[in-house]
Amino acid sequence: MVIPVEDAADPRLADYTRLRDVDLRKSLEGERGLFLAEGEKVIRRAVAAGHPVRSVLTTAKWLGHLADVIEGVTVYLVSDEVMEGITGFQVHRGALASMERLTPPSVSDVISGRVVAGGAPQEGPRRTPRRIVVLEDLVDHGNVGAIFRCAAALGVDALVLSPRCADPLYRRSVKVSMGAVFAIPYARMTDWHDGLAEIRAEGFQLLALTPDRAAVPMDDVVLGDRVALMLGSEGDGLSSHWLHEADHPVRIPMSETAMDLGVDSLNVVAAAAIACHSLVR
Amino acid sequence: MVIPVEDAADPRLADYTRLRDVDLRKSLEGERGLFLAEGEKVIRRAVAAGHPVRSVLTTAKWLGHLADVIEGVTVYLVSDEVMEGITGFQVHRGALASMERLTPPSVSDVISGRVVAGGAPQEGPRRTPRRIVVLEDLVDHGNVGAIFRCAAALGVDALVLSPRCADPLYRRSVKVSMGAVFAIPYARMTDWHDGLAEIRAEGFQLLALTPDRAAVPMDDVVLGDRVALMLGSEGDGLSSHWLHEADHPVRIPMSETAMDLGVDSLNVVAAAAIACHSLVR
Repeated sequence: MVIPVEDAADPRLADYTRLRDVDLRKSLEGERGLFLAEGEKVIRRAVAAGHPVRSVLTTAKWLGHLADVIEGVTVYLVSDEVMEGITGFQVHRGALASMERLTPPSVSDVISGRVVAGGAPQEGPRRTPRRIVVLEDLVDHGNVGAIFRCAAALGVDALVLSPRCADPLYRRSVKVSMGAVFAIPYARMTDWHDGLAEIRAEGFQLLALTPDRAAVPMDDVVLGDRVALMLGSEGDGLSSHWLHEADHPVRIPMSETAMDLGVDSLNVVAAAAIACHSLVR
Repeated sequence: MVIPVEDAADPRLADYTRLRDVDLRKSLEGERGLFLAEGEKVIRRAVAAGHPVRSVLTTAKWLGHLADVIEGVTVYLVSDEVMEGITGFQVHRGALASMERLTPPSVSDVISGRVVAGGAPQEGPRRTPRRIVVLEDLVDHGNVGAIFRCAAALGVDALVLSPRCADPLYRRSVKVSMGAVFAIPYARMTDWHDGLAEIRAEGFQLLALTPDRAAVPMDDVVLGDRVALMLGSEGDGLSSHWLHEADHPVRIPMSETAMDLGVDSLNVVAAAAIACHSLVR
């Protein structure tokens, strides 16, 4: 059902108009279990992962592109001006969708391969995850999205997040991931202290990425049948507890010259990209 | 000389106060040959690379940390409030420096190893560059800074930029690079069409990174004595002219599953990180 809306203040647009207040958005997402997907391609991926669509906000130009997605969905049709007024910026590829979160799968469901992306039970044959990434307490939503994109594109099987890690369904995460958050299974631990033990109990070798020069270069590690690569937060890296829990600390070799000049570290996304590439070798 | 300034509108702060107008800033940087370095560590690296300091803007808290750097330099001392008022945001580690650009070195100077970072003639023995990265028309300053950081940390010897590639000394590039733009030699081509021929004439094998599935995986390429890795712009990748000029197209292998799901590409920084890691293997 396509409903033209002329006034940005129309209460039916509440899912979108309250977007600009970051704190309010957090609370809305928490209470109602919502998130926003931006752009035709990302909306399609979210739908394919099983997320119900509450409504779509778009402009006349983009309506045709979404014809198959919006069947049976409430679509608020606005002018370009109202669209920009509502969101405060130009919306990428002219469409936003307010979508419902699904019941999050457990870590056990994800690492045993019982669920696919989105958390739905898997149908048909699919290999059990053998290469996974575990994120501890990343704070930046863009970094979380970028790591999901790397992991999915390179062929990592699943991700596990620490309890405090930034939300992959936050708007910026979804956008930076280019929809990869809907293409790879993931779960959030409920227990930071004992969360790694559960992963190890499933037979995973735990590799902790660290800048420590005494660690083994990632490419030199003989990878076991099941391997979990642990990545720490932007500022401090992995906690000492998680480093202690790991089977091996691993590192990406840095240039001696660069170390002398003090340019001796990579940002977490660059490090994750190199380490994921090595993980799936 | 430390000069307390109480009024954000004081004309002596012009290098800093005009910061917020992006267009004006571009023009100022062009006309006067200036750039801004942010934070104690980055300022130190810029000074070490030979850039003269026009002035420093800081607060009382940070003055002591900069004691050795500011000898003989004009320092404008402002309150935290004026600092934030001037720049429109919290300045990382409380100091900004307005610095002068140096005469840019030529591509020939950089790839033959006649200059070090900053473009000054090299003193003492230093190996001739064997592994370089060539950037074509990147538009995002953050991406340029992030690639400089990766290249420097991983041990790439130098960078060459196409004539239209975003400026490594733009404020965001400098910041994202964490000062790596002052730690690795680079030059800008003057001729896009024939620029690669000059690099090839110096004995470099030209590798073009592309998503093309027919290209050779980067890790499988036998690297010659001198290798140049070419990276294209965010949207379109390398131009067909540059692809045609390359000795080999190379790719980073992507997951078949991800390709089926349409999550089949990396962002340019993640791709650059993986490819640079392979380049210095």
